[in-house]
Amino acid sequence: MSTLTNLTIAIATVFSATSFAASEPIEIIPAAIITNPDKVELGKMLFFEPRLSKSGFISCNSCHNLSLGGVDALPTSIGHNWQQGSINSPTVLNAEYGLAQFWDGRAKDLKEQAGGPIANPKEMGFSHELAVDTIRSMPAYQARFAQVYQKDGITIEEITDAIAEFEKTLVTPNAPFDKFLLGDKNAIDADAKAGYQLFKDKGCVSCHNGPAVGGTMYMKMGLVKPFHTNNPAEGRKGVTGKEADKFVFKVPTLRNIELTYPYFHDGSVWELAEAVNTMADIQLGQALSENETKQMVSFLNSLTGEQPQIVLPILPPSTADTPRPVPFAN
Amino acid sequence: MSTLTNLTIAIATVFSATSFAASEPIEIIPAAIITNPDKVELGKMLFFEPRLSKSGFISCNSCHNLSLGGVDALPTSIGHNWQQGSINSPTVLNAEYGLAQFWDGRAKDLKEQAGGPIANPKEMGFSHELAVDTIRSMPAYQARFAQVYQKDGITIEEITDAIAEFEKTLVTPNAPFDKFLLGDKNAIDADAKAGYQLFKDKGCVSCHNGPAVGGTMYMKMGLVKPFHTNNPAEGRKGVTGKEADKFVFKVPTLRNIELTYPYFHDGSVWELAEAVNTMADIQLGQALSENETKQMVSFLNSLTGEQPQIVLPILPPSTADTPRPVPFAN
Repeated sequence: MSTLTNLTIAIATVFSATSFAASEPIEIIPAAIITNPDKVELGKMLFFEPRLSKSGFISCNSCHNLSLGGVDALPTSIGHNWQQGSINSPTVLNAEYGLAQFWDGRAKDLKEQAGGPIANPKEMGFSHELAVDTIRSMPAYQARFAQVYQKDGITIEEITDAIAEFEKTLVTPNAPFDKFLLGDKNAIDADAKAGYQLFKDKGCVSCHNGPAVGGTMYMKMGLVKPFHTNNPAEGRKGVTGKEADKFVFKVPTLRNIELTYPYFHDGSVWELAEAVNTMADIQLGQALSENETKQMVSFLNSLTGEQPQIVLPILPPSTADTPRPVPFAN
Repeated sequence: MSTLTNLTIAIATVFSATSFAASEPIEIIPAAIITNPDKVELGKMLFFEPRLSKSGFISCNSCHNLSLGGVDALPTSIGHNWQQGSINSPTVLNAEYGLAQFWDGRAKDLKEQAGGPIANPKEMGFSHELAVDTIRSMPAYQARFAQVYQKDGITIEEITDAIAEFEKTLVTPNAPFDKFLLGDKNAIDADAKAGYQLFKDKGCVSCHNGPAVGGTMYMKMGLVKPFHTNNPAEGRKGVTGKEADKFVFKVPTLRNIELTYPYFHDGSVWELAEAVNTMADIQLGQALSENETKQMVSFLNSLTGEQPQIVLPILPPSTADTPRPVPFAN
């Protein structure tokens, strides 16, 4: 074969792969581009910082565990004093792709989200004031904040900004499905390919689309048939006050869904196959055959990407000025 | 200067440094030598594995946090259902150098220790049987155990063996004081040098010696004057049944003491200076001047070594056979 022919085939392959990917409703997740590594490193320290909680025991990573797909793998989370959380902890992986944060979208971005659990009495149980006092009390943090923000003083704005900057790096590129989208037809098996076709044909993709395969819109949980749950969460209604927003939640990402069980905002379903069937039933009014369910699960499992490689941060020691943790008393 | 003279000086320096180090009651901490990296990696996964607890929320790292000097930095730990632990969590760093494990030495080694908290109803609240069922339920763990142990089946023996193998790597070499011992006279400042001299002259070193600056013996807490505490722990008496062992505890390591506050088995003292003065008083019947205390603290801070660089493990997903976590109900 001539070099020219080889070149032509190569170009044709790239073009065809690119146009295939471009025409699909799911987009690849690109690797994180880190423009400010010092801010990311600072944010990582804060993400793993249990002294941002009243008890000194709970960090962001406690409920968004980066060893476990960015979740705690519990129906609802454990908060200060072992309080039971009100909703399933969503994954922090690829969270930046959400149109807003929390199941009800009440935080507009990751920065605004990061301030929530710190001050929530059922979660980390602290206050922004004490969080700032804590971080400010340690010279090593002072030096890092001064370097990153080029100003004196630390406020909750910088703390949550740094956490968000770290969280933006928590993406999971190179899932088998991404490789498939990019033209590697052997990256996923026949079941997964069939599952993807079903995912589009049945209409799942009308809500689960974009790079995160979700996160792009709000949708009613129980669109065709009601979703039965003991969980009292009403979703967007709590934010907008509108009755029409009752049970309307942010569509969750399906990236790494293999890792982020149990499923739904109430964490009531542990098996992915069951979650798929429930969704088909109550959102689309469809019943899947056993084989279709299997194919759909194969497709969903192909969305597990490369997990972030995190070197555990070493945190600076408390000083005499650091507010002491209050794990047990008031 | 002739080459021969240079060589002579070099040899003399090495010889002098070596003999200086050899004649001192504190020994350097060498870097970990990893002979079985697969076992260490498996042990690391298990160390960070919250599914070894009843709740699915508490791992070894929860109370021996490798971001925080291998401790939780709390007076006593938080266990299952937010139960208050009975004793201060000792650091896992350099723990292998202890003559036994736990404050009362009731476990003969790290392997025996590792089984304790998993099954302790006040700590991880699980059972060895459920721990084994959990690990066995995941194909990725099965493959790793088969590779490391070259046998079928997983028991609590292998689980705790792997955890111990990982923990043996958690050493902190190259502390400024180690560099000083090895001949770098500028590695620690004048206060630290004076503090070390005091540490020897006052008699601290009679208990705090060896590579870990502790861990080599048991000693009564309150040797000269009683130690006042509300903590009911009686130390070795609980193991041996002998009245003479009442309040006799394993001498804790002073390596990384800057990071492992609060101090003593009851975690009652937050400031290192206060801990030093209390020890001088109740163990040695001595009162230190303000300057002596400062020097002693400088010396102790020079014992902070290089912290282990840990890449957070990615844990395999649960399967339909994995016992589900029971965070809230019985």
